[in-house]
Amino acid sequence: MSIRPHQEQVLSSIAQETIQPIRWQNDGLRLLDQRVLPEQVVYLDIDDVYAAAAAITDMVVRGAPAIGITAAYGVVLAARQRFQENSATWREKVDADLQYLKSARPTAINLAWAVGHMARLIETLTDVDPVPQLLAAAQQIHADDIAANRRMGELGAALINPSSAVLTHCNAGALATGGYGTALGVIRAGVSQGRITQVYADETRPWLQGSRLTAWELSQDDIPVSLIVDGAAAWLMKQGKIQWLIVGSDRIAANGDVANKIGTYSAAVAAHHHGVKVMVVAPTSTVDMETASGEAIPIESRPEDELLCIGGKRVAPAAVGAWNPVFDITPAELIAAIVTEKGVVEEPDCEGIARMMNT
Amino acid sequence: MSIRPHQEQVLSSIAQETIQPIRWQNDGLRLLDQRVLPEQVVYLDIDDVYAAAAAITDMVVRGAPAIGITAAYGVVLAARQRFQENSATWREKVDADLQYLKSARPTAINLAWAVGHMARLIETLTDVDPVPQLLAAAQQIHADDIAANRRMGELGAALINPSSAVLTHCNAGALATGGYGTALGVIRAGVSQGRITQVYADETRPWLQGSRLTAWELSQDDIPVSLIVDGAAAWLMKQGKIQWLIVGSDRIAANGDVANKIGTYSAAVAAHHHGVKVMVVAPTSTVDMETASGEAIPIESRPEDELLCIGGKRVAPAAVGAWNPVFDITPAELIAAIVTEKGVVEEPDCEGIARMMNT
Repeated sequence: MSIRPHQEQVLSSIAQETIQPIRWQNDGLRLLDQRVLPEQVVYLDIDDVYAAAAAITDMVVRGAPAIGITAAYGVVLAARQRFQENSATWREKVDADLQYLKSARPTAINLAWAVGHMARLIETLTDVDPVPQLLAAAQQIHADDIAANRRMGELGAALINPSSAVLTHCNAGALATGGYGTALGVIRAGVSQGRITQVYADETRPWLQGSRLTAWELSQDDIPVSLIVDGAAAWLMKQGKIQWLIVGSDRIAANGDVANKIGTYSAAVAAHHHGVKVMVVAPTSTVDMETASGEAIPIESRPEDELLCIGGKRVAPAAVGAWNPVFDITPAELIAAIVTEKGVVEEPDCEGIARMMNT
Repeated sequence: MSIRPHQEQVLSSIAQETIQPIRWQNDGLRLLDQRVLPEQVVYLDIDDVYAAAAAITDMVVRGAPAIGITAAYGVVLAARQRFQENSATWREKVDADLQYLKSARPTAINLAWAVGHMARLIETLTDVDPVPQLLAAAQQIHADDIAANRRMGELGAALINPSSAVLTHCNAGALATGGYGTALGVIRAGVSQGRITQVYADETRPWLQGSRLTAWELSQDDIPVSLIVDGAAAWLMKQGKIQWLIVGSDRIAANGDVANKIGTYSAAVAAHHHGVKVMVVAPTSTVDMETASGEAIPIESRPEDELLCIGGKRVAPAAVGAWNPVFDITPAELIAAIVTEKGVVEEPDCEGIARMMNT
């Protein structure tokens, strides 16, 4: 495969990122295994579409944009295998693979978005080897995501007064995206501009994305970060310690309701109570105009053991169960601003979201 | 030491409890080591007042009423040792021991209350062996606490409509008291009366009192309990799944502000937002009429490692710190009812608290 000048630019923009959760390398997909960070920095080679789907389900890779990018590369793997098996009937087999891939996790709309984008490209392909064009498209999605994050970083940071302190929940950083991050992109830009001088991060139970991933990312960039237990967020706000709560999203409904990691809603309610502003940062691939409101967003429940066991060891007694929804919905009225690469929607509602999407 | 009929009744009321976190046995204090529950059920022998203070600081025993009872027995240990050393000057030495004991943890007022109660008794003693009278007083505090919990259980349960579901935070159970529990006492009574049919428990980071202690206690009594991450409390309320948030307290100010485990305030703000009622259950030994409002209550900060390490293993990267206040203040206006053994104060304020205390 020859690399055209535009494609060179795409690849270079991906390669520039310091933290690369997703790489296409030696004709294959490599994923940074986020389950073992920060203790170990291990890349896993993903050889086929089933391994890509499993990596999403098992949270080797997580974060809505990163799931979307992984799925796009997963489509490349599927097409390569099916085309090698039978260059005449490969499309039919790929169709089933794409359905399988789309079902890997339910909440992040970026997964369906990326698979849909790749599926539409497949429809336009002639019967030559589909891999070069699909790979270029996946890499474009990847590079576009990074560019969107950089743009959102600037747009979001501009909303923040100098010397502010902020709280973030979960990990909406380089690790959750193609690179640079959504919420953490705003925080990176804000810190570099002197608008943000202190970052607090919820540890984010049950998966501890805050302690393991956000703290790791920010410390790599020498950004001052203090961890708190999720239950301390309201008390932090009561002390007047923060001005903004900044989070990512797994799906934004047409009315501006936001699905994000469990605990986001709790923090947003507390922010509302204390006059702390809530900023949601996500690319337009996270906006689902087909979903009217948060009520229609499917909320994934994950195994009880994520909560009942820590480090492979059970902490709760044997007979006890758990309720473990891993996302929640923050209604638009609790949100001061939704930031996408297309612009900022303040006090989001149907009209504001539609206007931004049609920009 | 001869046991009088009244004292027999006191001892029998202590012994009747199924879960006994604190025992006076073989002339010594035995504490159930709450740091290793539910995996191990281990009692530690506490031989002197320094060991008693260390057991409080290190959270072998925790929960405001249990800390108070432990301290009362700790005074017995101090007096016994100092009287053996020198039966003429023992009081002076005991004074210093009591100051030391009182400083073991700052937030729970029951500690100062119990030590003060015992100190006043010491002032009245003649120069005979002080141990029998002090031990009887400590056992009376212990038995009174259990009786108060039983009474609060009835009073609190009466506020709850049949077939309700409730959420509790931390552990305000048998393990946090002399037996039976405060918040869990209301839950035990409510379940036995059919008023409560489902209990949710916050896991309660960083110490996981919910997963380790509350879940263990309730499962011992076959009470249905589901654990949630602390961040899921608001989402649980949004689903309409609970009618009451029921918690204990470490100190109640004269205006009805309540200090309790970090995360209580967050849950109370969420409850307020969703019209879920908040009940605080604590004996009058927890009420500190000398403290005008929550702002004057000292909030303990504990080591960062409680948050950054799990099971002795660090989860966050090395360079990262944490903010770890382990209590917070819930203002009276978020509380529907404070339940003590003297009665119920609905919509608590200075007048209501004063009236109840003077009953």
